[in-house]
Amino acid sequence: MLLVTFSDGTDGGRRRPGALRDGAVLDLGALSSGALQDLLTVVQGGAEARRELDRLVDDASARALEAATLTLDSVTLHAPLRPGKIIGVGLNYVEHVEESSRTLDTDKNLPERPVLFSKPATAVVGPGEPILHDGNLTGQLDWECELAVVIGRTARKVSRDEALDHVFGYSIVNDISARDQRRSGQWFFSKGQDSYAPFGPAIRTADEVPDPQTLDLGLKVNGEVKQKGNSANMLFSIAELIADISAGVTLEPGDVIATGSPQGVGAAQNPPQFLKPGDVVEATIEGIGTLRNPVVDAR
Amino acid sequence: MLLVTFSDGTDGGRRRPGALRDGAVLDLGALSSGALQDLLTVVQGGAEARRELDRLVDDASARALEAATLTLDSVTLHAPLRPGKIIGVGLNYVEHVEESSRTLDTDKNLPERPVLFSKPATAVVGPGEPILHDGNLTGQLDWECELAVVIGRTARKVSRDEALDHVFGYSIVNDISARDQRRSGQWFFSKGQDSYAPFGPAIRTADEVPDPQTLDLGLKVNGEVKQKGNSANMLFSIAELIADISAGVTLEPGDVIATGSPQGVGAAQNPPQFLKPGDVVEATIEGIGTLRNPVVDAR
Repeated sequence: MLLVTFSDGTDGGRRRPGALRDGAVLDLGALSSGALQDLLTVVQGGAEARRELDRLVDDASARALEAATLTLDSVTLHAPLRPGKIIGVGLNYVEHVEESSRTLDTDKNLPERPVLFSKPATAVVGPGEPILHDGNLTGQLDWECELAVVIGRTARKVSRDEALDHVFGYSIVNDISARDQRRSGQWFFSKGQDSYAPFGPAIRTADEVPDPQTLDLGLKVNGEVKQKGNSANMLFSIAELIADISAGVTLEPGDVIATGSPQGVGAAQNPPQFLKPGDVVEATIEGIGTLRNPVVDAR
Repeated sequence: MLLVTFSDGTDGGRRRPGALRDGAVLDLGALSSGALQDLLTVVQGGAEARRELDRLVDDASARALEAATLTLDSVTLHAPLRPGKIIGVGLNYVEHVEESSRTLDTDKNLPERPVLFSKPATAVVGPGEPILHDGNLTGQLDWECELAVVIGRTARKVSRDEALDHVFGYSIVNDISARDQRRSGQWFFSKGQDSYAPFGPAIRTADEVPDPQTLDLGLKVNGEVKQKGNSANMLFSIAELIADISAGVTLEPGDVIATGSPQGVGAAQNPPQFLKPGDVVEATIEGIGTLRNPVVDAR
């Protein structure tokens, strides 16, 4: 299922859970007679809640489905949920390690352990929402299209073999950075500012992603291809990342791992290219969709 | 007021808000006839909620106060709240910058901007709870006593002059690090593991801290003094930190800023000294109390 969080003019604009089907939005709150209030609760219910959701839709009459279906242009999509934490993985695609060492002062050797950082929940924006360009803080606003793993079951010291059992589904995070706000090497302020974690447009549930290490991903700026890659080229696989992180840091339902960016970031263009107000960034991952965000002046 | 979160054998062990007075705990839930359910809600209520709390206590009869008072040894104190985010500040005391450059590969020059990192909420433990020593992950578990600022009102691009109006109160965070888990320079996994953010034992409300830049702070390991400093020696003051962070990252009620550690960390002892199972760490800040945690083997 391809799950979203949306609102429309009704219900006081409240954000509700939905499913994308045949180019329309199925209102899961309406279909469940209000039992499903938000997507985070579904995620926290793990695989069992996901199966209940399948049953809810499978058992519904054609009339009930039609009554609960809204056209896409009558709704606004939001970030699927507010993560408890977002853990980012740096330097997780081989070619990006090379371009980064050339342009961003990182090590040219492949990392021996995942390079982890984090973004706060306040950095999240949804599809269509602006990426804030504050010229007082940065002249080097950059993009990174990343496969986002949404945790569905608490993971603490899990093995690689069991790791994917803890995944609820997959989405997209655009890991925005102000390259000139790295501080004594730390990436938090560079990557953690408001709007620096566009997230969405949807979560593809894990049961519909037989192998998350085979997905094409890419990013365009103003329609021009900048990044193009495949999750097969991750240095540390999703299962390895979950095992590694959960060895020390408990992952909770609703947490998100942004699994790293393929090559083609702005700092590595020749000449370097950074985002400016008026640009439009589109991050696309196979089977999930396109996360589109405009860049706006926010001085 | 010196606010805590506690539980006892009653009410199914539920965590409740309280105030420390004369060596006892005033049960604010009982005193408010159940209106106050948890400390985070009080913090989210900001200065107005804090004043209501004062009125609640001031207006209570001696009999009501006595009925709602519990002895300290009949309760368990917990972390005051679960922060939305914890932002740490590295290298914020001059002498610590020097010892860190000597022993931890950081720059010997004073940072020109605050060095920011973050710890997830899953890293928080309360007073008395164990700091987990996993010998498979680290042989360099270190301490850092830090003044913790608890945000009480949303701060977005606030000036230095207005910054302290956004503070609910002050507490203690022991910024635990596995020094050997820095990864390509990033501190998240080194500082973000479960139990690496002991927090508490109490929050001193801001109205009772006329100048937060005058507080003695220090840390003992097994009764021996390791750190001794004063918040006057911060490189960036609390007001400067809030202004700097909120220029890009929105601070929300319940967020915590751990404002950096004075000199005397384990890595800088001669010879270096790190925490091992069986050790007891006590972080003390003037007017707030002592945050005491044992170190336990967690392999």
